Amino acid sequence: MKKYKILANEIIEFIIEKNLKRGYKLPKVNEFQQTFGYGKSTVLQALTLLDQQGIIYKVQGSGVFVRRNPGDLKEYVALTENLGFYSNNQNVKTRVLKLEELRLPPKWAVEKGLPASPCYSVKRIRIKEDGPFVIEHSYYSQQSVPYLSREIVEGSIFSYIRQALGKDIRFSEKYMHVVKLTDEQAEFLQLEENDPALEIKEVFSLSDGQIFDVSRLVYNYKNSKFFSQSSDEILS
Amino acid sequence: MKKYKILANEIIEFIIEKNLKRGYKLPKVNEFQQTFGYGKSTVLQALTLLDQQGIIYKVQGSGVFVRRNPGDLKEYVALTENLGFYSNNQNVKTRVLKLEELRLPPKWAVEKGLPASPCYSVKRIRIKEDGPFVIEHSYYSQQSVPYLSREIVEGSIFSYIRQALGKDIRFSEKYMHVVKLTDEQAEFLQLEENDPALEIKEVFSLSDGQIFDVSRLVYNYKNSKFFSQSSDEILS
Repeated sequence: MKKYKILANEIIEFIIEKNLKRGYKLPKVNEFQQTFGYGKSTVLQALTLLDQQGIIYKVQGSGVFVRRNPGDLKEYVALTENLGFYSNNQNVKTRVLKLEELRLPPKWAVEKGLPASPCYSVKRIRIKEDGPFVIEHSYYSQQSVPYLSREIVEGSIFSYIRQALGKDIRFSEKYMHVVKLTDEQAEFLQLEENDPALEIKEVFSLSDGQIFDVSRLVYNYKNSKFFSQSSDEILS
Repeated sequence: MKKYKILANEIIEFIIEKNLKRGYKLPKVNEFQQTFGYGKSTVLQALTLLDQQGIIYKVQGSGVFVRRNPGDLKEYVALTENLGFYSNNQNVKTRVLKLEELRLPPKWAVEKGLPASPCYSVKRIRIKEDGPFVIEHSYYSQQSVPYLSREIVEGSIFSYIRQALGKDIRFSEKYMHVVKLTDEQAEFLQLEENDPALEIKEVFSLSDGQIFDVSRLVYNYKNSKFFSQSSDEILS
């Protein structure tokens, strides 16, 4: 990992440990240098990264302030991150409903919105302490993910892709709308038919821009909260 | 507006007009220079901005590609932008339900999650061609927005803040969950009690980092779709 990314993580730890809140004024650049022991340009790069991640904000002539304490959002699904809910929710259990290979004519694959063909079709339910959390139906392109087993999909598929396959997950798009649960979905989520749910279609890409995962997630409205933020200035 | 931002907008227009789709390979930097008539560093800055906005992506040694065509997402509320739905939905009408000044002891203001006191409390319904779209209840701090009238809140309050007050809207945080509509909400949205809805709490800040607007929005599930994306590399 690059030096400024290591420092950025150290500053995040600092914010969480000291329980710093929005508006708290952070030390000056030279104090950061002394406290953390990095060069000036590394400190500046780390602060720029944290600014882009929405953790801090800079006010011209006034200093650098905490924008949000990542520790305060543990219960939320972060929509602008690629990490999935594993990042924040360590206690997620997985129940695998289906794992099968799909081989479709390429034209059909495109029509069905699959990443490519052949692919793996994986259906899982993720369960938190307070019950079933989300139904997840994913298609993984075999071009990018040549092999999946029951054991792998019972854990974190993204960790497997990163660590075992050595591939970088680069970015994602999410398309969302609110729906009423079908009878089958309600049963899996321990809710009632026609209860509300957020349905998210997620499209994930590797570092070469290739789509490797198209997923449809249906969240339990009783135990799911979501968080999103606009990037500072970039998107304004 | 800075030169590279103007060029970035020109490239967006180019992508929309030519109806370019994901994966389309864009011209090389020197071709951009010739076609659009800007210097190399302006082209590189514009491409970096478009990368950060998720419009394009770069592949090392391979070129620059379209990530999304902004024209294809006109129907969506973009959760990672500060622009609100006005940016994409030009045909939104507004019905004002309430406009009043609130003066609360500062401690109460904080407890109620208001930006500050005194503030304006504004309740509106936004209506698209296919019906009521969202119920919006906002609190505007009078420190930042000293005056609001019926006429102003019938239009775009953000345009007023930008143009009449000359202030920059800098960033926002959004907290979301799915709810069942109350009887009153259902009536405003022309839906049934207990129908599903996405409720979003939005917190908006000016360029000095001050919160000027805290809003609660309740969306009609039948005519609302949402879009979010992870920034390229920044957040991965």
